[in-house]
Amino acid sequence: MDDNAFGIWDGEIAAELPQDYDAALYFIGRIRTPWVQRKDCPKNARESNAVCTIEVDPRWQQALTDVASCSHLILLYWMNRSRRDLVLQVPRHYGIGRGTFALRSPARPNPIAMSVVRLLGVDGTKLSVTGLDCLDDTPLLDIKPYFASTDAVPEAVVGWHRTLKR
Amino acid sequence: MDDNAFGIWDGEIAAELPQDYDAALYFIGRIRTPWVQRKDCPKNARESNAVCTIEVDPRWQQALTDVASCSHLILLYWMNRSRRDLVLQVPRHYGIGRGTFALRSPARPNPIAMSVVRLLGVDGTKLSVTGLDCLDDTPLLDIKPYFASTDAVPEAVVGWHRTLKR
Repeated sequence: MDDNAFGIWDGEIAAELPQDYDAALYFIGRIRTPWVQRKDCPKNARESNAVCTIEVDPRWQQALTDVASCSHLILLYWMNRSRRDLVLQVPRHYGIGRGTFALRSPARPNPIAMSVVRLLGVDGTKLSVTGLDCLDDTPLLDIKPYFASTDAVPEAVVGWHRTLKR
Repeated sequence: MDDNAFGIWDGEIAAELPQDYDAALYFIGRIRTPWVQRKDCPKNARESNAVCTIEVDPRWQQALTDVASCSHLILLYWMNRSRRDLVLQVPRHYGIGRGTFALRSPARPNPIAMSVVRLLGVDGTKLSVTGLDCLDDTPLLDIKPYFASTDAVPEAVVGWHRTLKR
């Protein structure tokens, strides 16, 4: 665990969280990765060739029917170690305060991460994939087929990020 | 509401749901669309030019900082009318049983939908977008910037779907 993993940095702002929750989730499996500490996780999942294993709860095995025919999947998973009240946060590698909804940081009101992964194979309830950067044992929420027709936008721009790199 | 919206069709299989939930969600806003019944929703969001409005709860306004610089966003939202126990389901327009995790159907253990939308503008806590196909008043869970570098895979293939279209 990082120092200050639950803390707040200069320039960060927290909102008051709602009193009640509105809906509830089932963990449907676990993601096995080589990374057990945050500092070990790759900064950009595309830069990593590490093969990770998605272990789906046997309860859902039949829901994996036809998944093997997909070249890429969307995974939703639960970043259970993140605080949920930050509205403005300062990613350490950028050093500038940004709005939470303009960042992919795990700290957000609903800490659901979304990753696009390449599917290497399916063996029973285990899926081998590349393209992840999360901690070992991260709870899995959903698996979806990736449709290029609706999900791929190669021309998309994140303005604040492009400015940064110039 | 459709006939049999909560029912089960020939060829569909339900799993027993876990006894307990594992995590909980806050609704952070609402999605306003022109569609109040399922039968009115477009089948393919890319075929619709309808402008929809994302109404974010004022609590989260500062989290929208920098979002206006994004050309495209990922929205996560809650398909609160769907049953959660189907592992094999028969989409009516295909007529063949498929595994839930090979489909984008709202019926899934965690009914979180993911859509990539084009951002037209931000006005306070309201975002104008295109690319949605959900019902009016759908609860919003998250807004993320769309990064082409990690999210766009134009060559991705959903094998069962390609076969179907031949």
